[in-house]
Amino acid sequence: MFYLIGLGLGDVKDITVKGLEVIRRCTRVYLEAYTSVLTVGKEALEEFYGRELLLADRDMVEQAADEILKGADVSDVAFLVVGDPFGATTHSDLVLRAVNAGIQYRVIHNASILNAVGCCGLQLYNFGETVSIVFWTDSWKPESFYDKIKRNREMGMHTLCLLCATAQGRKIYEPPRFMTVAQAAEQLLEITVCVGLARVGNDNQAIRAGSLREMASSDLGGPLHSMLITGHLHPLEVDMLKLFSDPEGLNSLKMTDSSTYTS
Amino acid sequence: MFYLIGLGLGDVKDITVKGLEVIRRCTRVYLEAYTSVLTVGKEALEEFYGRELLLADRDMVEQAADEILKGADVSDVAFLVVGDPFGATTHSDLVLRAVNAGIQYRVIHNASILNAVGCCGLQLYNFGETVSIVFWTDSWKPESFYDKIKRNREMGMHTLCLLCATAQGRKIYEPPRFMTVAQAAEQLLEITVCVGLARVGNDNQAIRAGSLREMASSDLGGPLHSMLITGHLHPLEVDMLKLFSDPEGLNSLKMTDSSTYTS
Repeated sequence: MFYLIGLGLGDVKDITVKGLEVIRRCTRVYLEAYTSVLTVGKEALEEFYGRELLLADRDMVEQAADEILKGADVSDVAFLVVGDPFGATTHSDLVLRAVNAGIQYRVIHNASILNAVGCCGLQLYNFGETVSIVFWTDSWKPESFYDKIKRNREMGMHTLCLLCATAQGRKIYEPPRFMTVAQAAEQLLEITVCVGLARVGNDNQAIRAGSLREMASSDLGGPLHSMLITGHLHPLEVDMLKLFSDPEGLNSLKMTDSSTYTS
Repeated sequence: MFYLIGLGLGDVKDITVKGLEVIRRCTRVYLEAYTSVLTVGKEALEEFYGRELLLADRDMVEQAADEILKGADVSDVAFLVVGDPFGATTHSDLVLRAVNAGIQYRVIHNASILNAVGCCGLQLYNFGETVSIVFWTDSWKPESFYDKIKRNREMGMHTLCLLCATAQGRKIYEPPRFMTVAQAAEQLLEITVCVGLARVGNDNQAIRAGSLREMASSDLGGPLHSMLITGHLHPLEVDMLKLFSDPEGLNSLKMTDSSTYTS
């Protein structure tokens, strides 16, 4: 039997009693180590389970799945996943490989962020599509998550934003990185391009284009003020707005998979 | 400390190791017995935990919350919930009461249908709003879930349909009822009103109005056939369609919170 076992979200004792029993009787126990990030180390798990764990990084699960499944038709093999086993596509792939190899499988579920997020008091029934927010680079600033959040809000739905977290994995020279809530909020502020206008038509009129964050700390002087929040932008519009923006600001708007910005 | 502890979805051993430890040391342990339905009995849980469980039905949680929380400021009280503790609003209410009474609380999460549904292979990130399908009565046929499913589909999202399950609870004379997948599918078929037309303009033309289910087993004879799927219906349109429908069929279209039917 091939067991996919969820470890839950917290520490070693978040495993279910059933899961723990299975782990203790399996021939081999793999620990998935890439789609989620453990809050406790492999050593702590090994000590609590009383078992050696074999680390399975993304390369291994994708390329050496047969090795993981080896012998699972005649003995028990466990594959441990932080949270619930079905958060990531790769595990569906493992299940399909097992079935194709005539190996039976069983899932032992556990809490994952997708349901545990209910602890904040928002009703899970009212969540729309989940979005992922990844780290922006100078040249790659995906913002499709913004449109999904907007769509959810239009329907009165909450949006769970999964923040980029890369564990050690495919590339050993890439250190783990975890996006903070502050960084995510920063990117959200960045994505909303506003134009502030003050005293339009007067000699001392002022126009200022920039992110919502920039706008929040702007001072355009005396009344009257107006504010625009941009929708889809034509390249010419972007060029115009740059006249009124910080050189560092809107120049970074070379979005690649953008729908808000087109350039 | 007031503990809200998820029991998971399956049997007694789906409790987490952490949850089990807490249960065994608590002064009182309540078992929530209304928003979800246990797959194992109270006795099986009591035997596995080695503890007596106090059954908390909806009335008790809503009206005798203070009794549940009593003493939780100086000793440990546990409240057990099938699945994860934050599936139902009432538990937020308990948490708020605890906080207002100066009682600390902790949540021990577990799998719930909202994340465990990933076991079917559909990606959880691609789920839209969750809908509830309740039992229809002769006079009450809510169908707002249909529009939500439609909206999700328009956006390419999957929809989890929670099927009505009433445990023993508020009304002791109401036996537990659990909607089957077949019953839910039946209601979905019922909700889609179609009109079939055959050989329009010919002497032997045929028009037939009914649910998608009725239509699937209809026989309107030789070619050519056309089919309509109705949107919002004006009362006059409903009256007309009744001319072409089974007397038992469209007469049941007195929807109360309907958006597809208006009558």
